[in-house]
Amino acid sequence: MVGSGPEAMPPFALHPTLARDTREVVRLPLCRVLLMRDRRFPWLILVPEREPAREIHDLAPADRAALIEEIARAGEVLTRLFRPDKLNVGALGNIVPQLHVHVVARSANDPAWPGPVWGSGAAVPYPEGELEELRERLTAEFQQVVENKGRKGQQGRKGQKR
Amino acid sequence: MVGSGPEAMPPFALHPTLARDTREVVRLPLCRVLLMRDRRFPWLILVPEREPAREIHDLAPADRAALIEEIARAGEVLTRLFRPDKLNVGALGNIVPQLHVHVVARSANDPAWPGPVWGSGAAVPYPEGELEELRERLTAEFQQVVENKGRKGQQGRKGQKR
Repeated sequence: MVGSGPEAMPPFALHPTLARDTREVVRLPLCRVLLMRDRRFPWLILVPEREPAREIHDLAPADRAALIEEIARAGEVLTRLFRPDKLNVGALGNIVPQLHVHVVARSANDPAWPGPVWGSGAAVPYPEGELEELRERLTAEFQQVVENKGRKGQQGRKGQKR
Repeated sequence: MVGSGPEAMPPFALHPTLARDTREVVRLPLCRVLLMRDRRFPWLILVPEREPAREIHDLAPADRAALIEEIARAGEVLTRLFRPDKLNVGALGNIVPQLHVHVVARSANDPAWPGPVWGSGAAVPYPEGELEELRERLTAEFQQVVENKGRKGQQGRKGQKR
Protein backbone atom coordinates (compact mmCIF):
# COMPACT_ATOMS: atom_id res chain seq x y z
CA MET A 1 0.00 0.00 0.00
CA VAL A 2 1.34 3.36 -1.03
CA GLY A 3 0.05 6.59 0.45
CA SER A 4 -1.39 5.35 3.73
CA GLY A 5 1.32 7.07 5.78
CA PRO A 6 5.05 7.45 6.13
CA GLU A 7 5.32 4.13 7.94
CA ALA A 8 4.05 2.36 4.81
CA MET A 9 6.70 3.89 2.52
CA PRO A 10 9.63 1.74 1.49
CA PRO A 11 13.00 3.05 2.70
CA PHE A 12 14.71 5.55 0.42
CA ALA A 13 17.71 4.33 -1.57
CA LEU A 14 19.60 6.48 -4.05
CA HIS A 15 19.54 5.05 -7.59
CA PRO A 16 22.94 3.44 -8.32
CA THR A 17 23.50 5.57 -11.44
CA LEU A 18 23.01 8.76 -9.43
CA ALA A 19 25.28 7.41 -6.68
CA ARG A 20 28.00 6.62 -9.23
CA ASP A 21 27.85 9.89 -11.19
CA THR A 22 27.72 12.31 -8.24
CA ARG A 23 29.18 13.33 -4.89
CA GLU A 24 26.82 14.26 -2.06
CA VAL A 25 26.95 17.96 -1.04
CA VAL A 26 24.27 18.45 1.62
CA ARG A 27 20.92 17.10 2.83
CA LEU A 28 18.03 19.57 2.85
CA PRO A 29 14.68 18.83 4.56
CA LEU A 30 13.33 17.05 1.46
CA CYS A 31 16.21 16.45 -0.94
CA ARG A 32 19.70 15.10 -1.07
CA VAL A 33 21.79 17.58 -3.03
CA LEU A 34 24.39 15.94 -5.26
CA LEU A 35 27.21 17.40 -7.38
CA MET A 36 27.63 15.89 -10.85
CA ARG A 37 31.11 14.61 -11.57
CA ASP A 38 31.35 16.75 -14.71
CA ARG A 39 33.55 19.82 -14.61
CA ARG A 40 32.14 21.21 -17.88
CA PHE A 41 29.16 22.62 -15.93
CA PRO A 42 28.44 23.51 -12.26
CA TRP A 43 25.67 20.93 -11.99
CA LEU A 44 23.59 19.96 -8.95
CA ILE A 45 20.99 17.20 -8.71
CA LEU A 46 18.23 17.28 -6.08
CA VAL A 47 16.70 13.94 -5.14
CA PRO A 48 13.58 13.99 -2.91
CA GLU A 49 14.00 11.26 -0.29
CA ARG A 50 10.66 9.73 -1.15
CA GLU A 51 9.94 6.29 -2.55
CA PRO A 52 8.58 5.55 -5.09
CA ALA A 53 8.24 9.06 -6.55
CA ARG A 54 8.75 9.15 -10.28
CA GLU A 55 6.83 12.25 -11.34
CA ILE A 56 6.36 15.61 -9.61
CA HIS A 57 2.63 14.90 -9.27
CA ASP A 58 3.47 11.70 -7.32
CA LEU A 59 4.72 13.84 -4.43
CA ALA A 60 2.39 15.02 -1.66
CA PRO A 61 1.54 18.75 -1.96
CA ALA A 62 3.72 19.66 1.05
CA ASP A 63 6.66 17.85 -0.56
CA ARG A 64 6.08 19.69 -3.83
CA ALA A 65 6.16 23.00 -1.95
CA ALA A 66 9.45 21.95 -0.30
CA LEU A 67 10.86 20.82 -3.65
CA ILE A 68 10.36 24.15 -5.40
CA GLU A 69 11.89 26.01 -2.44
CA GLU A 70 14.92 23.70 -2.46
CA ILE A 71 15.26 24.20 -6.24
CA ALA A 72 15.26 27.97 -5.59
CA ARG A 73 17.95 27.60 -2.88
CA ALA A 74 20.13 25.51 -5.21
CA GLY A 75 19.72 28.16 -7.90
CA GLU A 76 20.72 30.90 -5.47
CA VAL A 77 23.80 28.96 -4.37
CA LEU A 78 24.94 28.44 -7.96
CA THR A 79 24.22 32.10 -8.79
CA ARG A 80 26.31 33.34 -5.86
CA LEU A 81 29.24 31.09 -6.66
CA PHE A 82 29.26 31.14 -10.47
CA ARG A 83 27.31 34.20 -11.73
CA PRO A 84 25.78 32.10 -14.53
CA ASP A 85 24.20 33.61 -17.63
CA LYS A 86 21.22 31.33 -17.00
CA LEU A 87 20.13 28.52 -14.71
CA ASN A 88 18.72 25.39 -16.31
CA VAL A 89 16.32 23.33 -14.22
CA GLY A 90 15.04 19.97 -15.41
CA ALA A 91 13.32 16.80 -14.26
CA LEU A 92 13.68 14.29 -17.09
CA GLY A 93 14.20 10.73 -15.87
CA ASN A 94 14.05 9.04 -19.26
CA ILE A 95 17.05 6.92 -18.23
CA VAL A 96 17.05 7.03 -14.39
CA PRO A 97 13.43 6.66 -13.23
CA GLN A 98 13.93 7.88 -9.63
CA LEU A 99 12.59 11.46 -9.39
CA HIS A 100 15.54 13.87 -9.53
CA VAL A 101 15.87 17.52 -10.51
CA HIS A 102 18.89 18.97 -12.29
CA VAL A 103 19.91 22.56 -11.45
CA VAL A 104 22.74 23.65 -13.73
CA ALA A 105 24.66 26.95 -13.97
CA ARG A 106 24.99 27.75 -17.66
CA SER A 107 27.42 30.12 -19.30
CA ALA A 108 27.26 31.45 -22.85
CA ASN A 109 30.83 30.11 -23.12
CA ASP A 110 30.11 26.55 -21.99
CA PRO A 111 30.47 23.70 -24.51
CA ALA A 112 26.72 22.97 -24.83
CA TRP A 113 25.37 26.54 -24.98
CA PRO A 114 22.61 27.34 -25.98
CA GLY A 115 21.57 23.66 -26.13
CA PRO A 116 20.71 21.55 -23.08
CA VAL A 117 23.39 19.75 -21.03
CA TRP A 118 21.48 16.48 -21.16
CA GLY A 119 22.76 14.21 -23.90
CA SER A 120 25.53 16.70 -24.75
CA GLY A 121 28.79 14.78 -25.03
CA ALA A 122 30.69 12.92 -22.33
CA ALA A 123 31.26 14.08 -18.77
CA VAL A 124 34.72 15.45 -17.92
CA PRO A 125 35.59 14.28 -14.40
CA TYR A 126 37.02 16.67 -11.81
CA PRO A 127 40.49 16.01 -10.45
CA GLU A 128 39.82 14.69 -6.92
CA GLY A 129 41.17 17.76 -5.09
CA GLU A 130 39.04 20.10 -7.23
CA LEU A 131 35.90 18.05 -6.60
CA GLU A 132 36.42 18.19 -2.83
CA GLU A 133 37.21 21.90 -2.85
CA LEU A 134 34.06 22.69 -4.86
CA ARG A 135 31.99 20.45 -2.63
CA GLU A 136 33.16 22.38 0.43
CA ARG A 137 32.39 25.75 -1.18
CA LEU A 138 28.91 24.51 -2.13
CA THR A 139 28.23 23.16 1.36
CA ALA A 140 29.25 26.48 2.96
CA GLU A 141 27.13 28.45 0.51
CA PHE A 142 24.06 26.26 1.14
CA GLN A 143 24.46 26.90 4.87
CA GLN A 144 24.51 30.68 4.26
CA VAL A 145 21.58 30.69 1.83
CA VAL A 146 19.40 28.45 4.01
CA GLU A 147 20.22 30.52 7.13
CA ASN A 148 19.38 33.77 5.28
CA LYS A 149 15.96 32.40 4.32
CA GLY A 150 15.32 31.27 7.88
CA ARG A 151 16.05 34.80 9.17
CA LYS A 152 13.88 36.42 6.51
CA GLY A 153 11.03 34.02 7.36
CA GLN A 154 11.22 35.04 11.03
CA GLN A 155 11.26 38.74 10.17
CA GLY A 156 7.90 38.49 8.44
CA ARG A 157 6.38 37.81 5.09
CA LYS A 158 6.77 41.24 3.51
CA GLY A 159 9.30 42.11 0.86
CA GLN A 160 10.24 38.54 0.00
CA LYS A 161 10.15 39.14 -3.76
CA ARG A 162 13.64 39.54 -5.13
CA MET B 1 11.84 49.81 -8.55
CA VAL B 2 11.15 46.10 -8.68
CA GLY B 3 9.52 44.24 -5.82
CA SER B 4 7.81 47.07 -4.01
CA GLY B 5 4.33 45.77 -4.85
CA PRO B 6 2.17 44.56 -7.71
CA GLU B 7 1.36 48.13 -8.77
CA ALA B 8 5.06 48.70 -9.47
CA MET B 9 5.39 45.68 -11.79
CA PRO B 10 5.43 46.27 -15.53
CA PRO B 11 2.48 44.69 -17.36
CA PHE B 12 2.98 41.10 -18.49
CA ALA B 13 3.62 40.51 -22.18
CA LEU B 14 4.28 37.08 -23.66
CA HIS B 15 7.69 36.85 -25.35
CA PRO B 16 7.19 37.02 -29.15
CA THR B 17 9.01 33.71 -29.73
CA LEU B 18 6.65 31.92 -27.32
CA ALA B 19 3.66 33.65 -28.92
CA ARG B 20 4.79 32.54 -32.39
CA ASP B 21 5.62 28.90 -31.50
CA THR B 22 2.55 28.08 -29.41
CA ARG B 23 -1.23 28.22 -29.14
CA GLU B 24 -2.82 29.26 -25.83
CA VAL B 25 -4.73 26.45 -24.07
CA VAL B 26 -5.89 27.87 -20.73
CA ARG B 27 -5.03 30.45 -18.07
CA LEU B 28 -4.39 29.11 -14.57
CA PRO B 29 -4.10 31.36 -11.50
CA LEU B 30 -0.38 31.97 -12.10
CA CYS B 31 0.50 30.71 -15.57
CA ARG B 32 -0.62 30.87 -19.13
CA VAL B 33 -0.58 27.33 -20.49
CA LEU B 34 0.56 27.10 -24.10
CA LEU B 35 0.66 24.19 -26.56
CA MET B 36 3.82 23.93 -28.67
CA ARG B 37 3.19 23.78 -32.41
CA ASP B 38 5.16 20.53 -32.71
CA ARG B 39 3.22 17.33 -33.25
CA ARG B 40 6.26 15.14 -32.50
CA PHE B 41 5.59 15.54 -28.76
CA PRO B 42 2.58 16.50 -26.59
CA TRP B 43 4.32 19.59 -25.25
CA LEU B 44 2.97 22.29 -22.92
CA ILE B 45 4.69 25.47 -21.80
CA LEU B 46 3.70 27.26 -18.58
CA VAL B 47 4.51 30.97 -18.40
CA PRO B 48 4.03 32.70 -15.03
CA GLU B 49 2.35 36.06 -15.69
CA ARG B 50 5.02 37.92 -13.78
CA GLU B 51 7.45 40.51 -15.09
CA PRO B 52 10.43 40.45 -15.05
CA ALA B 53 10.88 36.88 -13.74
CA ARG B 54 13.78 35.07 -15.34
CA GLU B 55 14.72 32.48 -12.74
CA ILE B 56 12.56 30.43 -10.36
CA HIS B 57 14.17 32.21 -7.40
CA ASP B 58 13.01 35.57 -8.85
CA LEU B 59 9.40 34.60 -8.06
CA ALA B 60 7.80 35.37 -4.70
CA PRO B 61 7.41 32.26 -2.49
CA ALA B 62 3.63 32.14 -3.00
CA ASP B 63 4.14 32.24 -6.76
CA ARG B 64 6.69 29.42 -6.54
CA ALA B 65 4.15 27.32 -4.62
CA ALA B 66 1.54 28.04 -7.31
CA LEU B 67 4.03 27.22 -10.07
CA ILE B 68 4.87 23.73 -8.79
CA GLU B 69 1.14 22.96 -8.35
CA GLU B 70 0.41 24.13 -11.90
CA ILE B 71 3.31 22.02 -13.20
CA ALA B 72 1.75 19.04 -11.41
CA ARG B 73 -1.67 19.78 -12.95
CA ALA B 74 -0.13 20.00 -16.45
CA GLY B 75 1.62 16.67 -15.84
CA GLU B 76 -1.65 15.07 -14.74
CA VAL B 77 -3.46 16.39 -17.82
CA LEU B 78 -0.80 14.99 -20.17
CA THR B 79 -0.77 11.68 -18.27
CA ARG B 80 -4.55 11.28 -18.56
CA LEU B 81 -4.58 12.10 -22.27
CA PHE B 82 -1.39 10.43 -23.49
CA ARG B 83 -0.25 7.78 -20.95
CA PRO B 84 3.39 8.82 -21.44
CA ASP B 85 6.33 6.64 -20.46
CA LYS B 86 7.78 9.70 -18.70
CA LEU B 87 7.10 13.39 -18.23
CA ASN B 88 9.95 15.79 -18.87
CA VAL B 89 9.84 19.11 -17.03
CA GLY B 90 12.33 21.85 -17.76
CA ALA B 91 13.00 25.56 -17.26
CA LEU B 92 15.91 26.43 -19.54
CA GLY B 93 15.60 29.89 -21.08
CA ASN B 94 19.00 29.96 -22.78
CA ILE B 95 17.33 31.41 -25.89
CA VAL B 96 14.06 32.95 -24.60
CA PRO B 97 14.83 34.72 -21.30
CA GLN B 98 11.22 35.06 -20.04
CA LEU B 99 10.66 32.44 -17.33
CA HIS B 100 8.78 29.48 -18.86
CA VAL B 101 8.47 25.83 -17.91
CA HIS B 102 8.19 23.01 -20.43
CA VAL B 103 6.06 19.98 -19.50
CA VAL B 104 6.40 17.31 -22.18
CA ALA B 105 4.83 13.85 -22.49
CA ARG B 106 7.58 11.49 -23.62
CA SER B 107 7.22 8.09 -25.22
CA ALA B 108 9.94 5.48 -25.68
CA ASN B 109 8.87 5.56 -29.35
CA ASP B 110 9.24 9.32 -29.86
CA PRO B 111 11.96 10.63 -32.20
CA ALA B 112 14.15 12.13 -29.43
CA TRP B 113 13.94 9.33 -26.82
CA PRO B 114 15.81 8.98 -24.47
CA GLY B 115 17.42 12.37 -25.17
CA PRO B 116 15.80 15.71 -24.38
CA VAL B 117 13.33 17.40 -26.74
CA TRP B 118 15.20 20.71 -26.54
CA GLY B 119 17.53 21.16 -29.47
CA SER B 120 16.32 17.90 -31.03
CA GLY B 121 15.59 18.57 -34.71
CA ALA B 122 12.96 20.80 -36.23
CA ALA B 123 9.37 21.15 -35.07
CA VAL B 124 6.69 19.40 -37.14
CA PRO B 125 3.62 21.67 -37.24
CA TYR B 126 0.12 20.30 -36.62
CA PRO B 127 -2.43 20.53 -39.40
CA GLU B 128 -4.75 23.34 -38.24
CA GLY B 129 -7.75 21.10 -37.51
CA GLU B 130 -5.63 18.74 -35.42
CA LEU B 131 -4.15 21.62 -33.40
CA GLU B 132 -7.62 22.96 -32.56
CA GLU B 133 -8.97 19.53 -31.69
CA LEU B 134 -6.04 18.84 -29.34
CA ARG B 135 -6.36 22.28 -27.80
CA GLU B 136 -10.02 21.57 -26.99
CA ARG B 137 -9.21 18.19 -25.44
CA LEU B 138 -6.49 19.80 -23.32
CA THR B 139 -8.77 22.63 -22.19
CA ALA B 140 -11.49 20.16 -21.14
CA GLU B 141 -8.97 17.99 -19.29
CA PHE B 142 -7.51 20.98 -17.42
CA GLN B 143 -11.02 21.89 -16.29
CA GLN B 144 -11.56 18.37 -14.94
CA VAL B 145 -8.17 18.11 -13.23
CA VAL B 146 -8.42 21.57 -11.64
CA GLU B 147 -12.00 20.89 -10.47
CA ASN B 148 -10.96 17.53 -8.97
CA LYS B 149 -8.22 19.23 -6.96
CA GLY B 150 -10.66 21.91 -5.80
CA ARG B 151 -13.06 19.24 -4.51
CA LYS B 152 -10.27 17.31 -2.78
CA GLY B 153 -9.06 20.54 -1.16
CA GLN B 154 -12.56 21.18 0.25
CA GLN B 155 -12.90 17.63 1.55
CA GLY B 156 -9.83 18.03 3.73
CA ARG B 157 -6.14 17.55 3.63
CA LYS B 158 -5.96 13.79 4.18
CA GLY B 159 -5.08 11.27 1.53
CA GLN B 160 -3.70 13.74 -0.99
CA LYS B 161 -0.67 11.64 -1.83
CA ARG B 162 -1.17 9.77 -5.09
